[in-house]
Amino acid sequence: MNSRFHIKPEIRILGIDDSALISDSITIVGAVFRGGEWLDGVLRSEITRDGMDGTDVIIEMVTSTKHYNQIRVIMLNGVTYGGFNPIDIVRIYEETGLPVIVIMRACPDFEKIEAALENLTQAKERFEIIRRAGNISRVVTKDASNPIYMQCAGIDRDGARRIVQLSSTRSNVPEPIRVAHLIATGVVCGESRGKA
Amino acid sequence: MNSRFHIKPEIRILGIDDSALISDSITIVGAVFRGGEWLDGVLRSEITRDGMDGTDVIIEMVTSTKHYNQIRVIMLNGVTYGGFNPIDIVRIYEETGLPVIVIMRACPDFEKIEAALENLTQAKERFEIIRRAGNISRVVTKDASNPIYMQCAGIDRDGARRIVQLSSTRSNVPEPIRVAHLIATGVVCGESRGKA
Repeated sequence: MNSRFHIKPEIRILGIDDSALISDSITIVGAVFRGGEWLDGVLRSEITRDGMDGTDVIIEMVTSTKHYNQIRVIMLNGVTYGGFNPIDIVRIYEETGLPVIVIMRACPDFEKIEAALENLTQAKERFEIIRRAGNISRVVTKDASNPIYMQCAGIDRDGARRIVQLSSTRSNVPEPIRVAHLIATGVVCGESRGKA
Repeated sequence: MNSRFHIKPEIRILGIDDSALISDSITIVGAVFRGGEWLDGVLRSEITRDGMDGTDVIIEMVTSTKHYNQIRVIMLNGVTYGGFNPIDIVRIYEETGLPVIVIMRACPDFEKIEAALENLTQAKERFEIIRRAGNISRVVTKDASNPIYMQCAGIDRDGARRIVQLSSTRSNVPEPIRVAHLIATGVVCGESRGKA
């Protein structure tokens, strides 16, 4: 996706977040949003805690929904889900044809991540998938004193920044991510908690 | 609640819907909304399919959430949840102190309901709870050719109508109900389906 393309305010975005680590099977929730305005649909799948299946599960979630041909971009909340299940955003882009934007509230500390991965199988492979998400950019959304960070695949930085900014209507993070987080924690824990 | 009171556009509404009947324990989802605009929180509980525990579960859901002191009104999608588990809106109003508005896409057929209840235990008690929701009013929301219907407890008809109309921003039904339905069906079935 090239940023010179017009981005509609109601661009369909699929935001995906995971829930609390309360069992070996972790619920992930997709929120199909129209821009930063309103919820069009809800998806749910399961991934393995600290497993390696997250990328495949997300590709299947995206390509099997009835919303697939309307969705224009996928947003993730970081690149590890369900503990340290690493998400390969380049492969998601290649297999779904949809650009991926990763949202982070803080800039990741790769040394800490690499150290934490040492306790898991396939540590090197996990770290390579995490690094594959590429360069990190700072983005100012609603609150200039509290920027967020993003990585992307299949879309240039300027286009990604514009989509992140137009969809961050209620808080510093895009609505599809904020709402996917509320749903995932709410349905798993009984009441939503924390911030996306 | 008296309709002469000012109703803020961002009045906190808890909309509750149930999910598909796929087991004996039926998930119900609460969506805490600011008027018809945005989602503030998500709640989840379980009721028994065709049981008698729905009213108690909803009272517990409402009074135990951190949003309790912000919520000003509860909205239900009909008065039977999880099959024929009847919801006593007068008792919810009395025990939570919050008015209740019941939304229906079509005017209920009480003869049909009474006949269906004959296959269940406590049929008479269920029917009395259903009748206790009181008179039914027609309300025009977004589409004048497609009115919806409501019942209420703890609030006068004019006030209830104004809240239903201000919160029906995206479709003919109030957003808290539309979104609770998307979440409940999405997380239980894997993808949201049907209309609230």
